[in-house]
Order: sequence, then structure tokens, then C-alpha cells
Amino acid sequence: MALIVQKYGGSSVHDVERITRVAEQIVATRKAGHDVVVVVSAMGDTTDKLLDLARQAAPLPVPRELDMLLTAGERISHALVAIAIHALGGQACSFSGPQAGVLTTPAHGRARIIDVVPHRVRQILDRGQIAVVAGFQGLSRETEEITTLGRGGSDTTAVALAAALKADVCEIYTDVDGVYTADPRIVPAARKLDAVPYDVMQEMAAAGTKVLALRSVEYARCHGVPLHVRSSFHREPGTMVTGTAKAPSAERAAITGIAHDRSGARLTVTGVPDRDGLAARVLRSVVGAQGDVDIVVRNASAADGHSDLTIVLSGESGPAAVAALEEQRTDLGFARLAYDEGVGKVSLVGSGIRTLPGVTAAFCAALAAAGIGVDTMTTSELRISALCGAAQLDDAVRALHDTFGLAAPQGALVGAGSGR
Amino acid sequence: MALIVQKYGGSSVHDVERITRVAEQIVATRKAGHDVVVVVSAMGDTTDKLLDLARQAAPLPVPRELDMLLTAGERISHALVAIAIHALGGQACSFSGPQAGVLTTPAHGRARIIDVVPHRVRQILDRGQIAVVAGFQGLSRETEEITTLGRGGSDTTAVALAAALKADVCEIYTDVDGVYTADPRIVPAARKLDAVPYDVMQEMAAAGTKVLALRSVEYARCHGVPLHVRSSFHREPGTMVTGTAKAPSAERAAITGIAHDRSGARLTVTGVPDRDGLAARVLRSVVGAQGDVDIVVRNASAADGHSDLTIVLSGESGPAAVAALEEQRTDLGFARLAYDEGVGKVSLVGSGIRTLPGVTAAFCAALAAAGIGVDTMTTSELRISALCGAAQLDDAVRALHDTFGLAAPQGALVGAGSGR
Repeated sequence: MALIVQKYGGSSVHDVERITRVAEQIVATRKAGHDVVVVVSAMGDTTDKLLDLARQAAPLPVPRELDMLLTAGERISHALVAIAIHALGGQACSFSGPQAGVLTTPAHGRARIIDVVPHRVRQILDRGQIAVVAGFQGLSRETEEITTLGRGGSDTTAVALAAALKADVCEIYTDVDGVYTADPRIVPAARKLDAVPYDVMQEMAAAGTKVLALRSVEYARCHGVPLHVRSSFHREPGTMVTGTAKAPSAERAAITGIAHDRSGARLTVTGVPDRDGLAARVLRSVVGAQGDVDIVVRNASAADGHSDLTIVLSGESGPAAVAALEEQRTDLGFARLAYDEGVGKVSLVGSGIRTLPGVTAAFCAALAAAGIGVDTMTTSELRISALCGAAQLDDAVRALHDTFGLAAPQGALVGAGSGR
Repeated sequence: MALIVQKYGGSSVHDVERITRVAEQIVATRKAGHDVVVVVSAMGDTTDKLLDLARQAAPLPVPRELDMLLTAGERISHALVAIAIHALGGQACSFSGPQAGVLTTPAHGRARIIDVVPHRVRQILDRGQIAVVAGFQGLSRETEEITTLGRGGSDTTAVALAAALKADVCEIYTDVDGVYTADPRIVPAARKLDAVPYDVMQEMAAAGTKVLALRSVEYARCHGVPLHVRSSFHREPGTMVTGTAKAPSAERAAITGIAHDRSGARLTVTGVPDRDGLAARVLRSVVGAQGDVDIVVRNASAADGHSDLTIVLSGESGPAAVAALEEQRTDLGFARLAYDEGVGKVSLVGSGIRTLPGVTAAFCAALAAAGIGVDTMTTSELRISALCGAAQLDDAVRALHDTFGLAAPQGALVGAGSGR
């Protein structure tokens, strides 16, 4: 008998029919003798609909009130899941984020979980009942205001609850079968991975793999919560995320897969005077506008004491960053500001990648052979990323998946200098 | 400068356009120098839609979970109102029922407010901001669970907050201009009343006048909160509900108006054995099933040691009462059970009504002249009510409004024995 946290996303609770299916699965898990805590997102596109109402009421809704509004979404779904469990003869109790003891920072719309104090959840489990917790929301410990966690927040709620309750596993139910070597919609031969270490999964999530929210993987790694990413449509096992990548041997890199991200944007600030710390101030303006900065390239070799600054950031935070820079234009004294969306990023993720020079060479050769022009590349211990036009992104993913032989399990190990 | 509580019902916040109009009115009140606390219902038919989802998930949803679900409705509307106020340059803060300190009994779906401890609301007012409170909901002091107050609950929230904050007035905004001598849709000549005493308003509400929920009038009377029922579409004054009816003089009754209720049902239990307390047990079964009993008539003169029991109750609670009686049929030993909806009730409300025999006589004569057959009649200090078929109800209202000359202000005083 285990303690299992199950997280169901918006598509799993899209309508009452799916909610009933989810309830059946929950009741079956309880009947098998396990303690069950369920975390649910809002139904289908409820959050988007609420956001739309808010934007009709005000072009820029106040963050505190937006959080009061959006938390209604999970409140509807978690109560309906509890009602459906009762209809099947189970016993369930729903809890809002604050009721479940999810304590966060005060930042509305992007709060981070500080701690979870799940007294009431524990009480319900002790009575043999099922706890159904609203994901994506919590209570600021500092201000006692209701907060939301930002995108992917329900994954983090599930992991944080699992950590606080010392759950045996945190199951993340999604509409795919698990984590793949690449997006199967782009690469039909992509292979489902049985297991991925936390740190590699972090890199995958950071590089654009949508199956798990980055923050939830970080939290799971930090607290040693085993994650099981699996399908809500069948009972086949999915992908276990647990443990750390083994230190790669001197000769082989263990490639996990290809991640991609289509949501990037590029800000080019030209003619920044080479005064002390001015480039840093430009950057601060962008970050202050909540710009989610990914890559910064400073071209200091431009003529006459000026340099150019290229900033790659998420397209979502782009407009705010542009507005922040425009506002300080006279103060910062730069010449021109260019902004384009549609920046694609393709990444090869795995352990031992940077250590082996052969991997980087093969990476570049594969993209070149596929006719993909790359102007910016970055590497980390576990990842090589290249920027390209969004239109070329799918080709880039396929070329790399193929080059590194990821369709076959043995392909995941690449010998140093194999030259492929 | 006054402290004003304003309550806006579901139709006043039906969509974002109306919410913006409501926000304008709120901001104008604040700009006029008043402290403003706003109580809102859920948007339009949100509550019904949520109820429908719950019934899709389970034929009889668990009450605790139903409350978790339904409270999402006001959560959406109160946040949107706050967002709209900010968009107009105002400062507002929304609070759920529990956040506003609304403490209730633990009965889910029909909790009663015990007390209001509005620390956070007071704090916001002290900062010069507007508080927007979710109506219809609270926190059970005993169980710490979230509760709803049942129909008309938002009116009661507004009055209870006004009492706790010692507000100067509690304004109830509706889609009519105030309290009328009869429903203007039935009696076009019906006259808007400038003022109605609490006790008379209680009788009007109990007799079916929908403008104010009965419980909210009781609460207002108990705590001396002046109520102002007014239109949300214009700024003309509506009806003030305050004070107590003056003791009627020996010669004159002050008739306030005609109330009607179309939602009644009749339960007839025949052949109840004349055993000790059996009739009382039948009644207890009905009340136990939350039957909202209005009138009970026991016909003890039936033959062979049996009697018949007629119970008039709200059509809403009828099916549960029937089910409760059927369940105990063998135990109670009655012969037959008949149930019919479509029971109409027409009431003449005012002070001094029972004291003056001429009024009752005129009441009966008016109905008889209109060809309305009456089989059951009840009277109280402030009211005479008669049951009739729901189809005849409109005629009955018109006949009484006409007979008692309510269209003209002076008609509201009826001389004793005037014989009209």
C-alpha cells in the first residue's frame, strides 16, 4: 500500500464525461489499497475564457484580482471530480490551494511554492478518503493573499504535495504516453523513454519539452519525488523521472532526446554606447519587465564606441520588454530596437554532451547537411542548443533525431569521435 | 460622508458590459466621498450552469462539494467587478465570503450567517479603497468548511456586512424600481412604495414578493440596518425598508400591498390512523426532508378513526418530502398520498389587518366576485392569505389591488367596516 499523488491536466477534465473517467481511475487506485491525493487543473480552456473576460473588463487587469478570478477555474473542476468520485461510491473531499496548505511567495500570477503544510489533506487520508486538491493556486505566506503559480503550476502543486506528504510516487497524467526522444508529431519514429534522470529532464523542459513544467522537475529533484509521466487514456507505464544522470564515461555520451521550442523571440538593440554598465542596464530593463531571458550576445566590436546587443527571450514576455526599453530610450541612448518573433530553438539533451567534442561536431554537421543556417549556438553540461528560423525547426529536429540514431534504443549511446 | 453597502444581483453583473456600468456607479459613489462595500452575486445564470454540471456528474451531488463548486460563481464576478473598478481608475480589493469574515452555521447549501468579522474589509476601507465581497458564501465557524447560504443569500450577505460595519444604508440594486403594491407585470396600475416597515416587508417576502429575500429582511430588522431597494438602471430613489409598522388605529388598517406566490405545492395524506402523535410524525418526516412547510390542515372528522392531512409547502422541496413519506409508508400506515404543484397563494399585507373584521370580509368578497374559489385561508397580524389555483392567481391579485384601491396613495388606508 502506497501513497500516490495523481495530477490530471485540463484536457483530462475537459468535460463531465472525462471527469467521470478520471474519477473511475481514482476510485480504482483507492480500491487497490493505496492512499490517493489528486491534483486537478481547470477544465479545458476555462482559464483562457476567464482571462478573456478579464481583458474585456480591463486592458491590463490588476494581478491580485486576476488571481482571485483565475483560481475559480480549479475550484470548479476539483469540486466536480469529488462529486463524480462520490457518485461512484468513493469518499472524497476537495480542497482549494490555500486549504491544502500550499504556501507561496506573494508574486501574483507567478508565485513560487515555498512550503506545503497539508494538515487537512492528511486528516482526510487518515479517514480513508481521497483528497482532491486544486492545482495552480496557493496562499502567500507573507500577504495572506490568494496567488497563482503561472503556467504548469498544477504539476508543481502535485510535486510539492507529494514531497510534503512523502508520497511514494507523483503520477502526472497527460494526453501523451510519456517523454519521447523527440515530439512524435514531428518525428514519427520517436521512441518513448522508460526513464529519464531529473537533471536531463530539467534540461529537456528548459529547452521546450512540454510534457512536464520545468519548475515541477526542479522541485521533484530537490525533494527526491519520483515522477511518473503517463497517459490518462490507458494503464501502460509511461516515463519515470528519477535519479541523476550517471557521470558519462570518457568515451560515450548518453543522448536522451531532441527538444525544441517554437516560442522564442529576438530583441536586437543596436548602437548602445560603450559607457560603463549601460549594456547591463539594458538587460536589467528587459528582466525587470519579466522578460524571460534565454540568451544574450553582446557584439562589442561594432564601430565608434558602440556595441549591439542581441537578446533571445520568450515571445510571451517580448512585448513587455520592448515597451520597457522604449520607455527608457532617451536614458539608455541606444540607436535602434528590432524585435522579431518566430525564433526556433533545437536542443540535443543528454549527459556527457559537452565533454565529448565529437557530439558538438556531429550536431553542427547534421544541421548543415539539412540546410539549416545556424547563427547562435549555446552549450551546457547536458545540452547543445541552436537557434534557427521557426519554419526550419521541424527539419532540424528530424535531422538530429536521425543523425544520433535515437529511434533505436542503442542509438542513445554515442561513441566519442564517432564522426556521425 | 457615509458608509454604504451596495448589493448587485446576477442580472446587474450579467456580462462584462453590465459589470463596467456597475463599476462606474461604484466609483461615482466613492468619488462622492462615501466609503463603499460592494456585494455581488454570480454572473447571470452561472449558478444554474454549475448546478447543471454537478447533476451531470452525480444525480445527487454531495452538499459539501456542491458548495465548493457553486462558490466559484461569485469568485468570478467579484474579481471582474474589482478589475473593472481599477480600469476606471478606482482602487478595489475583492474578498471571498470567508475572507470577508462571513461566519455561518455548518449546513451546506442553506447555511445561516451567525456573525461577520470584517477585519480585512475594514482595513481596505481605512486605506480609502473599495471592498468587493462575494455574496451567498461564508465559512462555517464549527467545521471551517466553505458554505453557501441558499437562495437570496447575497441579499443577506449585504445586510449582515452592513450590520457588522454599522453602515449608514444597505442598497439592494435590482432590475425593478423598488417594492410595489403588487407585481406591475400583473397589475399595470401598481404603485411604487416610498417606504415599507421591516415587519410588513417580512410578510411581503414570506408571501412571495421576490424583491428582497426574507432572511435578509429579518436580519436587517434585527440589527436595524436601513435597506434601500432601488434600480440598477437609473438613480431615482427606490423603496426604503426601515422602522416598524405603527400600531394601527382602532378604525383604520394601513394596507401595503398584494403579494403572490406561484411556487406552492400541496401534499394530501389521507387515512392517517388516529394514533397518538402520528400526524406529528408525518409532519416531522416532511420537515426532516427540508420541506418548507407553509400551511397544515388536519381534517380529524374523517370516518373510522382516521384523519386526513393537507400540507402546503414550496414546490421546490415537494419531491424530497414525497420521497421521505413514501419511505416510511408502512411505518406511518397512511392510506394514500397525493401531490400536486401549481398551488397559488395571494396575500393582502399591511398593518392592522386582522384587527379589523371589515378587511377580511372585503378580501373574501373581492375574490368571490372575481369568481375565484378559495378553499384555504390563513391570517396573521399583518396578512391575510388565500390559496387558489395557480391559473387564477393573476385575477386574484388584480381583484384585490382594485378592491382595496391601492393604485392611489390614499387608498392604502381602509376604514373599518367600509364594506368595500
